[in-house]
Amino acid sequence: MIPVKGLPEVGEGDDVGQLIAAAVELEDGDVIVVAHKVVSKAEGRIVRLAEVKPSAQARELAGEEDPRRLEVILRESARLVRTRPPLVIAETRHGFVCASAGVDASNAPEPDAVVLLPEDPDASADRLRVRLRELTGVDVAVIVSDSFGRAWRQGTTDVAIGCAGLRPLVDLHGKRDAAGYELHATVIAVADELAGAAELVRGKLEGIAVAVVRGFDASGEGTASELVMPPDRDLFR
Amino acid sequence: MIPVKGLPEVGEGDDVGQLIAAAVELEDGDVIVVAHKVVSKAEGRIVRLAEVKPSAQARELAGEEDPRRLEVILRESARLVRTRPPLVIAETRHGFVCASAGVDASNAPEPDAVVLLPEDPDASADRLRVRLRELTGVDVAVIVSDSFGRAWRQGTTDVAIGCAGLRPLVDLHGKRDAAGYELHATVIAVADELAGAAELVRGKLEGIAVAVVRGFDASGEGTASELVMPPDRDLFR
Repeated sequence: MIPVKGLPEVGEGDDVGQLIAAAVELEDGDVIVVAHKVVSKAEGRIVRLAEVKPSAQARELAGEEDPRRLEVILRESARLVRTRPPLVIAETRHGFVCASAGVDASNAPEPDAVVLLPEDPDASADRLRVRLRELTGVDVAVIVSDSFGRAWRQGTTDVAIGCAGLRPLVDLHGKRDAAGYELHATVIAVADELAGAAELVRGKLEGIAVAVVRGFDASGEGTASELVMPPDRDLFR
Repeated sequence: MIPVKGLPEVGEGDDVGQLIAAAVELEDGDVIVVAHKVVSKAEGRIVRLAEVKPSAQARELAGEEDPRRLEVILRESARLVRTRPPLVIAETRHGFVCASAGVDASNAPEPDAVVLLPEDPDASADRLRVRLRELTGVDVAVIVSDSFGRAWRQGTTDVAIGCAGLRPLVDLHGKRDAAGYELHATVIAVADELAGAAELVRGKLEGIAVAVVRGFDASGEGTASELVMPPDRDLFR
């Protein structure tokens, strides 16, 4: 686990691949975990609250908080899952269920702005992967991560909202454990575990947005959209 | 991240601390992540299905599966959260919400047996921590882990169901990010991220039940019970 230090503050249009390649020596098979805010800022996924007019629903959900922030959350939501003003748990257009539909004010580029999730985090991960190969000649996997709360458990863990160059789910169905018993229902969300592991070395306060996981066998292809539970299997819709 | 190889199959009454201390050189500050099955087996938390008489409810929930396994799940459940035969999501007496109330047939010591969660996983973690200090003189933290599914997301990740010698939640409330903005609602479940990271190097198929995380600043004290969302804050009860 290697935290990538010394990355500058990222702004719209910046070449994140170039910044990472300049900051760390990459090796084939590395998994690069990038906090989504870096990607979102580079992609211009910023909303200035001064330009937002809150709806009646946003005012109602805001409680004592800024209704303009709630308005942005509503725009980013495909479905509201739970609300307790000013808390909103929403499903995003990507299918992710998370607080505030992923809209966040911390680490925003200015005090009166909020950062949205990338439009298509899997595509963002893939572009970054391709760019890193172009710049360095090495073949890496990329995970775009965010901090999500969980039902029934306190605290957030980082999970994968975008990925490229690895299988996010490792399926052990039909395989046998060390004692020879078949493993049932054993599909491991390794992309989420990798994102969480990277969070441990990144540290939110130090503003280290990128970490490299070395020595994990990241083979195969897949996208973080596979991590979204399909509605027909979802017992918690 | 160090996988601990060469541990023997564990049985009731075995001294897990001694087995770990013999298999790996520990250092002060190490976080030892132990799959709960090792702890459960050493504590004799095994039920032989031949000794179980299923109730009518167990038969109903079992669908095509073994109703005796469902009977054990019902006994381990404080509350059923969702059911879709033969799938049961239940709250355990510890407050954990997970599939089958943590009852599992894989890696059981015999084909007709199931393994339960430890009676008090925080106490198990603490006993193991004390025992390792006794045997090696070093001061480590211990996490007892299990693989949990998540609402809305596919696949399991390993989480902490017991811990000793570290704060499972790191609270950044009121702290400021790199840009100087105050971080709201930022409590990170590091114990769960550590458990997930350990899963990546353990590998279910190889039967490596223990991993050591070195270089994580594990200070403070706390229990995994802190990771359980209190009912009054829980939007998903």
